[in-house]
Amino acid sequence: MARIASLSGFPEWLPEGRLVENHVLDTLRRTFELHGFAPIETRSVEPVSQLLSKGETSKEIYVLSRLQAEQGAEQSDRRLGLHFDLTVPFARWVVEHAGDISFPFRRYQIQKVWRGERPQDGRFREFTQADIDIVGDGQLAEHHEAELALVMAEALAALPIPRAQVRVNNRRLSQGFYEAIGLTDVEGTLRAIDKLDKIGPEAVAELLVAESGATADQAAQALALAGITGGADDVRAAVEGLGVSGELLTQGLDALCAVLETAERRMPGAVIGDLSIARGLDYYTGTVYETTLEGHEDLGSICSGGRYDALASAGNRTFPGVGLSIGVSRLVARILGADLATASRSVPTAVLVAVTDEAHRSRSDDVAAALRARGIPVEVAPSAAKFGKQIRHADRRGIPFVWFVGEDGHAVKDIRSGDQIAADPADWTPPAADLWPTVSGTADAGSSQ
Amino acid sequence: MARIASLSGFPEWLPEGRLVENHVLDTLRRTFELHGFAPIETRSVEPVSQLLSKGETSKEIYVLSRLQAEQGAEQSDRRLGLHFDLTVPFARWVVEHAGDISFPFRRYQIQKVWRGERPQDGRFREFTQADIDIVGDGQLAEHHEAELALVMAEALAALPIPRAQVRVNNRRLSQGFYEAIGLTDVEGTLRAIDKLDKIGPEAVAELLVAESGATADQAAQALALAGITGGADDVRAAVEGLGVSGELLTQGLDALCAVLETAERRMPGAVIGDLSIARGLDYYTGTVYETTLEGHEDLGSICSGGRYDALASAGNRTFPGVGLSIGVSRLVARILGADLATASRSVPTAVLVAVTDEAHRSRSDDVAAALRARGIPVEVAPSAAKFGKQIRHADRRGIPFVWFVGEDGHAVKDIRSGDQIAADPADWTPPAADLWPTVSGTADAGSSQ
Repeated sequence: MARIASLSGFPEWLPEGRLVENHVLDTLRRTFELHGFAPIETRSVEPVSQLLSKGETSKEIYVLSRLQAEQGAEQSDRRLGLHFDLTVPFARWVVEHAGDISFPFRRYQIQKVWRGERPQDGRFREFTQADIDIVGDGQLAEHHEAELALVMAEALAALPIPRAQVRVNNRRLSQGFYEAIGLTDVEGTLRAIDKLDKIGPEAVAELLVAESGATADQAAQALALAGITGGADDVRAAVEGLGVSGELLTQGLDALCAVLETAERRMPGAVIGDLSIARGLDYYTGTVYETTLEGHEDLGSICSGGRYDALASAGNRTFPGVGLSIGVSRLVARILGADLATASRSVPTAVLVAVTDEAHRSRSDDVAAALRARGIPVEVAPSAAKFGKQIRHADRRGIPFVWFVGEDGHAVKDIRSGDQIAADPADWTPPAADLWPTVSGTADAGSSQ
Repeated sequence: MARIASLSGFPEWLPEGRLVENHVLDTLRRTFELHGFAPIETRSVEPVSQLLSKGETSKEIYVLSRLQAEQGAEQSDRRLGLHFDLTVPFARWVVEHAGDISFPFRRYQIQKVWRGERPQDGRFREFTQADIDIVGDGQLAEHHEAELALVMAEALAALPIPRAQVRVNNRRLSQGFYEAIGLTDVEGTLRAIDKLDKIGPEAVAELLVAESGATADQAAQALALAGITGGADDVRAAVEGLGVSGELLTQGLDALCAVLETAERRMPGAVIGDLSIARGLDYYTGTVYETTLEGHEDLGSICSGGRYDALASAGNRTFPGVGLSIGVSRLVARILGADLATASRSVPTAVLVAVTDEAHRSRSDDVAAALRARGIPVEVAPSAAKFGKQIRHADRRGIPFVWFVGEDGHAVKDIRSGDQIAADPADWTPPAADLWPTVSGTADAGSSQ
């Protein structure tokens, strides 16, 4: 087989990278399960017509065709495409299984998604997302909007990464404010505000005047709103200080402050108000979330989501939902690329059992079986080479212990220190820190397992 | 969103099914890691030209195209297809990373694969495979052929399924025998023998005569060989009893008996010789494996694989390998469909903390946080409904405990027995069996967690 260049946008890791990724995935899963989220997986494909119902992502969809399909056999609306997120499939799944589940329904879902865009700036065409959502039948209490931010903050705090901060805004607050000052092009205003980081306030003001019919004063007010960040008290004081009032604005401000107050009580500093958040406000209807990683702001939001009054609907029935999604692959790529965390070895193995000669391999197999029966990961040396070579085999993989099988007793050597002791496979156990590979944050990361 | 019919061939489970699947995946992963297999994942796509290098599966490949791609932009050999197994991608990965890994290299890989065939008889278009392989650089010792059968037998024995038996044959044995009796169309003979189960011995004999140039006597001898099953001694005696000899035949018989002897010593009854196994012998070069599930023989082989003298090659360098692959989705579909095992509840949650009134929700949140900090999965009731309704909320999900937050003390109720006791969130712990959902085999399955 000829050497094949790796495909841009389709990340792959060596085992030591995959061990770090597994640590991230296991940590997320454990946090989600501690909070009662149930696991589901959905198929990787949806009808293209369904994927297109959101419109804007049409360019990114990978469509499937069978290599040997008869010409024209798979017509437009029957075509299947790979899902580009886990929200569209989950919404479909909720409708399909509404009769089989109890509401409010809490689920997590950790799966690959695909986007057929040209890869650039570290964008992946295939990547893993980890989503949590709570979905109700007809109604969903607002306290879940604080809860989700806190579950994700807790999950991120357990990872070997720098401090993450969940930043929240509320669609009703922004819309209520714009309407109260007479800015009727809400969507256009949100699109302009979303460009604040990229083009700066002056250019945004020009955009608002040119494209959303704003006066210079209205543009200045919208920018003043977007400049507000902080905790509940700061946000309330700053918004009220703008001297604008309206029913929707008050609703949105109260909702945002409720989320912030709950978060401040439970995890001080983990969640902050940021009224510049505008992305997604065209489809979210309440709280909207973005998450920045301290010192890695260039990554953009590592965890985003929001509240939908109708995540899904079927006939007269609507299913409001609130959800958040972590871009796992992008996070893992950064952990590995910036050396934020490393695995303690490249294989699960804690002990390599040496083989004295091939005729007695079964004795080494016996030792391995006895250790494994007590939960110790073990492999047996692939050949009865000289012991020095067998030790190098362990050393290259980071396996900490080599076991020697003797005629009248066994010995185990810690090949890092060189210490060797007599040992019995029925009761010897490696130190807890050596039993399985561990993943630790480096000092720079400011966090560790 | 309109109700969408489920897509044939793309299985999805409810949370209680996904919990069973996760138990299966966790058990496999733990067994593989106890044996020192390192985790990797490969991208889901390969160039179509690469996927086609095996030839026979060309009809099954799903090819990707971007929805908005310019006409003709993605030409034949640059097109990407979804992988249909994990062996082709692993072979490519080994060549790509030969400089980064140490040989012999042991890896497991648990991922989705796709086959674009028309779904029938429970065949899936999207399903999960769990593979283990050991790959060498230039050489790979034969003892790994026994080892892999035993790792898989151990993994399958740990699942809540009936007894699985790994059935083994050896390419050199079959080929050596055919050549020794003068049957030169080895591939054709293997194809005919592979049909034994479906069409019976008489039809196979006719095929051998009509299509592989066999005499009636040669056909009878080939069928006699295929009728041999059993342990090392039985197989050796039966093969030698056929009165045929040849160097390749002897090599193959010795190799097969070595695998069987090792397996009999380590896990009596788990691995058996079955000389009717012919599938895959056109590309495997040594041991070949299939696995049947007692009482579920209609499933076909649930775990198959074999030895390749050249799993991959690059220039003058070849990488021999031996591997086995479990069809996880088909196995899980049978576990769920035949009720072989069930999850003890449909959510991870062990405790639902009741809410007395919304104004005091934070007290319930405090209790939940205290319990979670000690590793207990908890959710807080979604609303301060009457306690009877909150208890029903728990009951519908199978959550065993409901926690009541009082002014001057707490109580926890086991809603199955109705027993209620005073409890402190700082030290109360549910019984170990209730902490997390468990997956247990039913009596019929003859195995359990």
